[in-house]
Amino acid sequence: MTDAPAPPAPSLGDCIFRPRTVALVGASADPAKNNARPQRYLAAAGFAGRIVPVNPGRAEVMGLPAFPDLDAIPGEIDHAFVMVPAAAVEGVIDQCARRRVPVATLFTAGFAETGPAGAALQARIVARAREGGVRILGPNCIGLVDVQGRLPLTTNAAFGAERMLPGPVSVISQSGSMLGSLLTRAAARGIGFAKMVSIGNEADLSVGDLAAILADDPETKVILLFLETIRDGPGLAAAARRAFAAGKPVIAFKLGRSALGRRVAASHTGAMVGGDELAQAWLRAQGILRVETFEGLIELPRLVQGFGPPRGRGVAMVTATGGAAGMIADRLGLMGDRVPEPPPALRERLAAAGIAIPDSPVIDLPMGTGEGGRYARILTELMASDHCDAVISVMGSSARSNPGMILSRVTEARLGAKPLAVFLAPQADEGLRMFHEAGIAGFRTPESCADAMHAYLDWRAPADPPAVAEADVAPARAVLAATTGWDERAAGALFAALGVPAAASAVLGPGAAAPPGLPGPCAVKVLSPDILHKSDAGLVQLNVAEGEVVEVAAGLVDKARAAFPGARIAGALVQQMERGLAEVILGYRDDREVGPVVVLGMGGVTAELRPSVAVRLAPVDAGTAREMIAEIPELRALAGYRNLPWGDLGALAEAVARFSRLAALGGAVAEAEINPLLVRAEGQGVVAVDGLVVAAGEGRTG
Amino acid sequence: MTDAPAPPAPSLGDCIFRPRTVALVGASADPAKNNARPQRYLAAAGFAGRIVPVNPGRAEVMGLPAFPDLDAIPGEIDHAFVMVPAAAVEGVIDQCARRRVPVATLFTAGFAETGPAGAALQARIVARAREGGVRILGPNCIGLVDVQGRLPLTTNAAFGAERMLPGPVSVISQSGSMLGSLLTRAAARGIGFAKMVSIGNEADLSVGDLAAILADDPETKVILLFLETIRDGPGLAAAARRAFAAGKPVIAFKLGRSALGRRVAASHTGAMVGGDELAQAWLRAQGILRVETFEGLIELPRLVQGFGPPRGRGVAMVTATGGAAGMIADRLGLMGDRVPEPPPALRERLAAAGIAIPDSPVIDLPMGTGEGGRYARILTELMASDHCDAVISVMGSSARSNPGMILSRVTEARLGAKPLAVFLAPQADEGLRMFHEAGIAGFRTPESCADAMHAYLDWRAPADPPAVAEADVAPARAVLAATTGWDERAAGALFAALGVPAAASAVLGPGAAAPPGLPGPCAVKVLSPDILHKSDAGLVQLNVAEGEVVEVAAGLVDKARAAFPGARIAGALVQQMERGLAEVILGYRDDREVGPVVVLGMGGVTAELRPSVAVRLAPVDAGTAREMIAEIPELRALAGYRNLPWGDLGALAEAVARFSRLAALGGAVAEAEINPLLVRAEGQGVVAVDGLVVAAGEGRTG
Repeated sequence: MTDAPAPPAPSLGDCIFRPRTVALVGASADPAKNNARPQRYLAAAGFAGRIVPVNPGRAEVMGLPAFPDLDAIPGEIDHAFVMVPAAAVEGVIDQCARRRVPVATLFTAGFAETGPAGAALQARIVARAREGGVRILGPNCIGLVDVQGRLPLTTNAAFGAERMLPGPVSVISQSGSMLGSLLTRAAARGIGFAKMVSIGNEADLSVGDLAAILADDPETKVILLFLETIRDGPGLAAAARRAFAAGKPVIAFKLGRSALGRRVAASHTGAMVGGDELAQAWLRAQGILRVETFEGLIELPRLVQGFGPPRGRGVAMVTATGGAAGMIADRLGLMGDRVPEPPPALRERLAAAGIAIPDSPVIDLPMGTGEGGRYARILTELMASDHCDAVISVMGSSARSNPGMILSRVTEARLGAKPLAVFLAPQADEGLRMFHEAGIAGFRTPESCADAMHAYLDWRAPADPPAVAEADVAPARAVLAATTGWDERAAGALFAALGVPAAASAVLGPGAAAPPGLPGPCAVKVLSPDILHKSDAGLVQLNVAEGEVVEVAAGLVDKARAAFPGARIAGALVQQMERGLAEVILGYRDDREVGPVVVLGMGGVTAELRPSVAVRLAPVDAGTAREMIAEIPELRALAGYRNLPWGDLGALAEAVARFSRLAALGGAVAEAEINPLLVRAEGQGVVAVDGLVVAAGEGRTG
Repeated sequence: MTDAPAPPAPSLGDCIFRPRTVALVGASADPAKNNARPQRYLAAAGFAGRIVPVNPGRAEVMGLPAFPDLDAIPGEIDHAFVMVPAAAVEGVIDQCARRRVPVATLFTAGFAETGPAGAALQARIVARAREGGVRILGPNCIGLVDVQGRLPLTTNAAFGAERMLPGPVSVISQSGSMLGSLLTRAAARGIGFAKMVSIGNEADLSVGDLAAILADDPETKVILLFLETIRDGPGLAAAARRAFAAGKPVIAFKLGRSALGRRVAASHTGAMVGGDELAQAWLRAQGILRVETFEGLIELPRLVQGFGPPRGRGVAMVTATGGAAGMIADRLGLMGDRVPEPPPALRERLAAAGIAIPDSPVIDLPMGTGEGGRYARILTELMASDHCDAVISVMGSSARSNPGMILSRVTEARLGAKPLAVFLAPQADEGLRMFHEAGIAGFRTPESCADAMHAYLDWRAPADPPAVAEADVAPARAVLAATTGWDERAAGALFAALGVPAAASAVLGPGAAAPPGLPGPCAVKVLSPDILHKSDAGLVQLNVAEGEVVEVAAGLVDKARAAFPGARIAGALVQQMERGLAEVILGYRDDREVGPVVVLGMGGVTAELRPSVAVRLAPVDAGTAREMIAEIPELRALAGYRNLPWGDLGALAEAVARFSRLAALGGAVAEAEINPLLVRAEGQGVVAVDGLVVAAGEGRTG
């Protein structure tokens, strides 16, 4: 008699979503309590695995044998769902470690979300779990659901009260309460889910970890994220790529579009760029679609499932109700999407088939035009036409009075070449359900339809940062190694080492008597890593003639010493005055949430009052830098506007790309800025006039 | 025996909405036809008046005696609903005139909406109607509905298929098809209407005429407008004031927020201001609330019914589901609304009652906090507190699982002091209906909730333009009377007559040999009403020394003659060069839709590429001009920003107000612009450097 081979250990994903045995730690026998819900819901859903209530006070809970602790449970345990008070969680994790329970979901709250003491407790628990080989989901997480696996492992009442519809969409949410809202709103439309996860505090398993599991999950075709913040950028970035490679769109709703207060940072860049521009740039770079309406999150999956990013941003619209189509077209226009006119060849083909369409971007059909297969014929032509990347069909009163008829008008068309969105203008619940069942994306409001379509049109494949050759950053590394304090001179040296041209300059040490040999006129600035906003403090003098440089420098240094007694002062920087056609700001930040970013903005006071910026993850190549330049309307003045001279935008793009290689210096730079960078006339390049660097871990001054 | 006194003639409103006899002209006996619908719908609704089908081919239509024409009908006819072909409409109007039918609603299409021929036919019909004392609703109008009067006088299928719920809201729509969408969507929420009108082409009766009738209608408490354009601004403005005075909010959804092409105009102003800024300024000045979501139009009435405009723009938020509240707060923040923190005194009062609320703008209640009357207590405090102008309550899963409970939590509060919006995060149809029945505004999406709340917070009482004293415009009238062609010199004279200071200047006629006696340096510009963009054409030279003025002027005039052979050229304008701290543009337009408007914008190329403007109906007083200045972020540079010198913003406000008095010149000026107007340092005023005027009816050049 030989031993049977041990079955392979289940994957982390299986332990989370398809546990053979789930322990409910802290299960209550009082059905009125939250702690009793998971067991009830699992039983009601028909969960096929073993359910083990853990409750030291009872031998039985709602008909199942209960155990005092995990140690007492016979056999393997794949997943522990923990509902004990915060103080008792550590002990449960120890039990999990002893019993080799691979994953513990912590419903318990009272950790990092409550303040420093809770954060410390959370850190301790995570450390224990890591030691013991236990992965943690949560804490402060309302649980998870695997619809096909009949696993409502959650305390959320929505999953007890509702029939769970299976579907191809999975959700990860940083807000537990939103899961119930999504579930119930989708269910009303006949839209189901595969898996839903409340990620809680992400103490261990992150959104990215779960997204990676879902990217491999055969039941998941689209991944939805409800995000309040980005805690594990690299993890989510990797998961998004994995999902993209698997043909699974990742769609995010992210809060924090309008921050009440923006982060105060040392540089102007900090003030110019709030949290949302960075998040937006980050999501887009990962190939994640972003919606801004709540129902868009529910309606968009069907629109994009099975499709990849569009080539352009044009959408065709066909309608029999102009007012409703206008509501959508208005919003698309505000977001920069286009509704291009159908090309003449298309109109001629339709005309040959006896279908006259009006000569306008939105195809507004007179009453009755859609009959006799004509509507389907128009849709078929639009699907096949290169002039648009997607199609919106707007349906009027028949969507309510005769949904089957309008559905058949659409399904008679040859669909599938590009996404098709159908907006039903009246209240048309049945119509929405019928379209969904037919695999066609229906939309309930003009706002969510425009939002979802915009998200699709703005979708791009995940972009990998360009490779940076070591030779391109070796000189910068040398400057980094040699620099101890980041005054303006050192910052300029770093930027110059990256290949960004700087104004000619020299340093006059304290007491220097000889002029620096610059032809002048010059700018003279006090040199100190400890004084920011030197202009505001009167420590900069412009247009100084060569002969006066020494005297002016001495005066400014004296003034600085008097005004900033503690500051390190290395003397004065004397710099050749430069002129350009435009002043821009180049900013860099190694952001806590999204990692290194580069920001191009207009310089000067006006731009400070009304920022005009383009943001990308760093590093960028010159092509991406060109895109950034094109996003700043003011820079069109340098690109052949009226009679104005052309600026050297090629050199600017190159400077942006070189500056962005700060991201390739291994995290040494926390923040940097060139302000201003002057853009000169075509062929004459750009020149950096002022700048600052904040090293990683360095206290910011000013 | 004495004659009974004749009953008073019914009002226009009664004839439209409560006709004693309605004639259905062109009624069909074939129930499949559109023309058969009104009679069927009227019968089904239980309309109590007399219904008279008119059909020359039949003696009876669906059970009612039919007549060949209006002449054959015995007794008075209050309202004719006309469904005959376009060519036959004129004859029907003649019959109406003969029979003294006070109002004819023209369902028939094929008029102004089809092009010039249709417009001519429409004009002829209106002329006939005016002669004959008949008012016309339409043409191209799908009809109207009086719910309480059981009058579905329409061909719209929605009114045949649906039970019509009575309610306090009436609708006027320029898009006929939107009525059915509004009706069905509202009905699903238990929301009913008083009257609904499709206004069609507004050939005679306008949106304003109907709004005025509704302002007097005792069954109408809120008026909704679905607008594609503003055809009769003064009429709607007057009606909006009438409704405001009657305590009836007027709410508009207006299309055209993003125009594909902006109107090409002679001035920069034209390019800077699209249609929507003007419409926005106009609606706001009439005290009309504006929503930007479709469902906001349905949900907002209950929020504002019975309230007037707010004092400020702060809203309190209370929630048990942070994610859902975040979706609303984000949008409010993007629109410039505030969620102020509850004041300490309020928090202390709640604390004394055993209710701890967190120290944050959104009152995010931990689970269970709302029980035992505590939720109601918090709402009562917020209702009574001066720190906010409205309250948003965000409800989580209980809104679905136990709507009665959450409703009672709210209704236990002392409500009514300010608007209260309740957003239900899950799918909660029953909850929405219950809140509506309880008289509380419920919202289905975070987007419509934020949109409606913003519309409320942005609501202001109708603003009457300031009175302009004749003495203030008499000098300008004199200039107008004396001017034949509007070259730059004449434009400058007009602005100077209004009291806007201009740079010192003189004209060198062709061949003039003596310098004009300005100390210089000067700007020299060719003087012609026929050449625009003179700088681009090289017909302006700056910084000309006094001694060179004559020669430069002669050269420029020669160049202009060569380049613009047909242009009128009066010589050259020599102008003292001026400097300022900032360049602004002052624009004026007598807009076709909204009437006279004044626009303040930043000047220079940068602002052309990225316009920064404030718009108001003209004229404005200096206080309103100050508000406009505050709306332009770049002008903060002149108001004590960093170390920059203060600009003379008082003088700028005065100049804006004076310039805006162009609106008091009786429509003589179609368009005008000062570009640039230089703002000098505080106490040194402003100075106009360049400008143009386009007289009413004058062909625009350039």
